[in-house]
Amino acid sequence: MQAEIITIGDEILIGQIVDSNSAFISKKLNKIGVSVYQITSVQDDRSHILKSLAEAETNADIVILTGGLGPTKDDITKSAIADYFDDTLIEDVSVRKNIEHLWKVFIKKPLSQVNLDQALVPSKASVLMNKYGSAPGMWLEKNNTIFISLPGVPYEMKALITDEVIPKLRTRFKFPYILHKTFLTYGLGESSLAERIENFENNLPDFIKLAYLPSLGRVRLRLSAKGNNKEFVEAEMQKQTNILLPQIKDIFTGFEEDVSIEAVIGKYLTKKGQTVSTAESCTGGLIAERFTANAGASKYFKGSVVSYTKEIKMNVLNVSEALIDKYSVVSAAVAEAMAKNVRQLMQTDFAIATTGNAGPTKDDTDEGLGIVFIAISTKDKVYSEQFSFGNHRVKVINKAANKAFEMLQKEILKK
Amino acid sequence: MQAEIITIGDEILIGQIVDSNSAFISKKLNKIGVSVYQITSVQDDRSHILKSLAEAETNADIVILTGGLGPTKDDITKSAIADYFDDTLIEDVSVRKNIEHLWKVFIKKPLSQVNLDQALVPSKASVLMNKYGSAPGMWLEKNNTIFISLPGVPYEMKALITDEVIPKLRTRFKFPYILHKTFLTYGLGESSLAERIENFENNLPDFIKLAYLPSLGRVRLRLSAKGNNKEFVEAEMQKQTNILLPQIKDIFTGFEEDVSIEAVIGKYLTKKGQTVSTAESCTGGLIAERFTANAGASKYFKGSVVSYTKEIKMNVLNVSEALIDKYSVVSAAVAEAMAKNVRQLMQTDFAIATTGNAGPTKDDTDEGLGIVFIAISTKDKVYSEQFSFGNHRVKVINKAANKAFEMLQKEILKK
Repeated sequence: MQAEIITIGDEILIGQIVDSNSAFISKKLNKIGVSVYQITSVQDDRSHILKSLAEAETNADIVILTGGLGPTKDDITKSAIADYFDDTLIEDVSVRKNIEHLWKVFIKKPLSQVNLDQALVPSKASVLMNKYGSAPGMWLEKNNTIFISLPGVPYEMKALITDEVIPKLRTRFKFPYILHKTFLTYGLGESSLAERIENFENNLPDFIKLAYLPSLGRVRLRLSAKGNNKEFVEAEMQKQTNILLPQIKDIFTGFEEDVSIEAVIGKYLTKKGQTVSTAESCTGGLIAERFTANAGASKYFKGSVVSYTKEIKMNVLNVSEALIDKYSVVSAAVAEAMAKNVRQLMQTDFAIATTGNAGPTKDDTDEGLGIVFIAISTKDKVYSEQFSFGNHRVKVINKAANKAFEMLQKEILKK
Repeated sequence: MQAEIITIGDEILIGQIVDSNSAFISKKLNKIGVSVYQITSVQDDRSHILKSLAEAETNADIVILTGGLGPTKDDITKSAIADYFDDTLIEDVSVRKNIEHLWKVFIKKPLSQVNLDQALVPSKASVLMNKYGSAPGMWLEKNNTIFISLPGVPYEMKALITDEVIPKLRTRFKFPYILHKTFLTYGLGESSLAERIENFENNLPDFIKLAYLPSLGRVRLRLSAKGNNKEFVEAEMQKQTNILLPQIKDIFTGFEEDVSIEAVIGKYLTKKGQTVSTAESCTGGLIAERFTANAGASKYFKGSVVSYTKEIKMNVLNVSEALIDKYSVVSAAVAEAMAKNVRQLMQTDFAIATTGNAGPTKDDTDEGLGIVFIAISTKDKVYSEQFSFGNHRVKVINKAANKAFEMLQKEILKK
C-alpha cells in the first residue's frame, strides 16, 4: 500500500508558509503501515492539480490532498476534483447543517452564500465531517485508488486524519506492519559512526533499512522494518537492537520517543510529583516555552526567569555582582548561581540555568561566540558543563536547549 | 523561468522531519523572479530520484535538489545524479582541501575514507563550495535545464543558496520582476472579506493575483504581480493598493514585512533606545523566546518572568494575594498587575503580560478554556484586553503571543 500526499496552495510555492501538514500525515499513515511514496506541492492551478492527480493515481493506492478548499476564488481544489471525476457539485445536507451550527454557536454572524457554498461537494464523494470548520473532507475512489481531500488548516486537517481517515482506512484494509526505532547518539560524527557499524549495516536483513540523521550535535540512527507478521517484525527489530546497542554504548543516550524529550521529562516529573524551574540567559525562554507547550505542564513546571541583563541576574536572581565581575556573565560560576537561586526562588526540585553568547555571527572578533554554560541544580547539589555550539544564533540557542533537557533527563534518571 | 524543488530523504516521507528547506528556497527564488512550479519530496531510492529528475526536466528550467549528500550508505543522491548525467565521480581538489581544512580546524579527528569520498563529484559538475560542511553543492546542465544539488542540512543549504546559487543565477539570466504585497487584517472572516472586496478582485489586471490566507485569528490578503518592467509592476501594485486600502481600513493592521512583528518591534525599540520585558503565564516564555530569537535582542529585551503558579506571581512578580483571590489568576486585574510589576522589576519602558487558560482540550467542563488576558504597561499607564482563543492549546498560546505583539506594536506607534 502506497500513498501520495498532494499539498495545494500558492503560499507553499512562494515560501510564505512551510508545509507541516505532510509530515503529520506521513507519520500517521506510517503508523498503520502505509508508506508514503511521494509528497508533491502544487499551485492553485487547475491544470496542474489535474496533472498531479493523474500522476498520483498511477503511483499510489491512496492519495491525500490538503488545501485549496476555502470559500474564496483562489481555492479551486473542489472544482478540480469534480472535473477529474467528471462529476458535478451538489449540496450535502449534513455539511450544510454543520455550517449552520458553527455559525450559530461560534461565528455569530449572518451566513452568506459563499459560506453555504462550502456545503457543495462532488456527488460521488463521501463526506468526512469537519468539526472545526466549514470545509468538509471528501473521500472518492477511481480505478482502485482512493482520493481524500482535506482542508489545509492544520488543526482541521489533523482532526480529520485522526478521527475519520485513519479509522476508515483501517476498517477497509489489512496493512503490513511498519516499525521504526530511532537510536539517539551524541559525540561521534556521522561518518565515523558509519565506519564503526559498517558490518552491522551490511548484515541487516532486506526488510530492515538503516538511516543516519545528523542534526545539531547528535546523530539519530533509524532502523525501519516492514512486514506482514507483526510479531516477526518486532522480534527481528529486537534482535538487531541487541546487536547494535553494544557497538554504540559509549555514545547512545536513549531511544527517540514519539514525544519530545521535554514531554518525557514532564511525564516523569508528574509521576514523581516533582517540579522544575529555569533561569535562562542565552536560551531566552525557549526551555520554558518547550516545557509549557505540553498540556499538563503546570503540574511540574513552575516558572522561569529570563535574564538578558546583568541587573536582572542580580536583582531578580540574586546573583552577586562580585561573582559576575570576577568570573564574567558567561561562566560556570554564574550559571550555577542562577540555577541554584531560581530553584530556591521558585521552590522546585530541579532547576536548569543557561548563560552564553549566542551570537550574532557578525561579531567574529568575539572569541566566546557559541560558548554556553548549562547548570543543573537539585536539592543537594549544583553543577555545570561548558559547551561550544558554533556560530549560528539559532543553532546555538536550540543546541543549548536540547543539551539542557538532556542534562536534566540524565540527572533525573540517576535517582 | 520556472523552478522545481526536489527534497530527498526517507525522513521526510515518514514524517520524521518537516521539510522547511523548500519554503526557504522558494522565497529566495521568488525574490529574483523565478516561480516555483512544484515541490516534490522523494525517498532515498535510485529509481525514484531518477524518475523525479526526468519529470522535473520537462517541467522546469531550474531544478534544485536538497538532501541525500551525506557520507553514509543511505545517501545516494550524488551517484543517482551521476547516473542521470551518464557521468562518473572524480575527486575535486578544492573540495578535498575544504574538507581537510574543516577537519583540521573544527573536527580535530582523523579524516577517514568516507569523509574524503565527499570530495568526489560528477565530472560534469561545477562545485559550489560548502563552507560549513563536507558535502559540496553541485551545478550541472542538461538540455537547457540547470540542476543544482545541495546538502539537506538547513544552515549549509541556506548559505549555499544565498552565497552561491542566487548570485550565479542572477549573472546568468535576466528574470521577470515578481512582487508580493501582503495586507494583514483582523476581525473579519475569509468569506465575508471576499464578499466585501469582490468587485476589487474581479477588476484586477491579469498579471496580479489575489490570495486569502486565513490563520490564527487573522486573514492575510496577498497580491502577487509579475512582469518584465519593474517600474510598471510597482506602479500597478501601488494603484491596486490604493483601491483596496479604503475598502478594508476598519480591519487593516499593516503590511506583512518579510521580518516578523517582533523583529519590527525590536528594530523600532533599538532606534529609540527603549526596552521591554514580559511576564508570561499562559504563553509560557514564547514571547521572550520570539524576541530573543533575533540577533541584537539584548539591546531592547531585558527579560521575562514566566510564572506558572500563583506563588510565583506573588513572590517574584509581587502581585498581591488579595488581588488574585478577589479576581482570580485569569483576570484583567492580575494581567495588569503582572505587566506593571515586571516593568518596574526589570526597569523597562514597556512590558507585556499574559494570563489565561490554554487548555488542554480535554477539560471541556472548564468554561474559561481559551480565555486570555493580555496587558501592556508603559511608564504612565497600564491596560488590558480579554480574548477568547478557542480550545486548542497550541493555537491559544500562539494566538496570545501574536496578539500581544500586535498590542505592543500599536502602543509603540501611538507615540
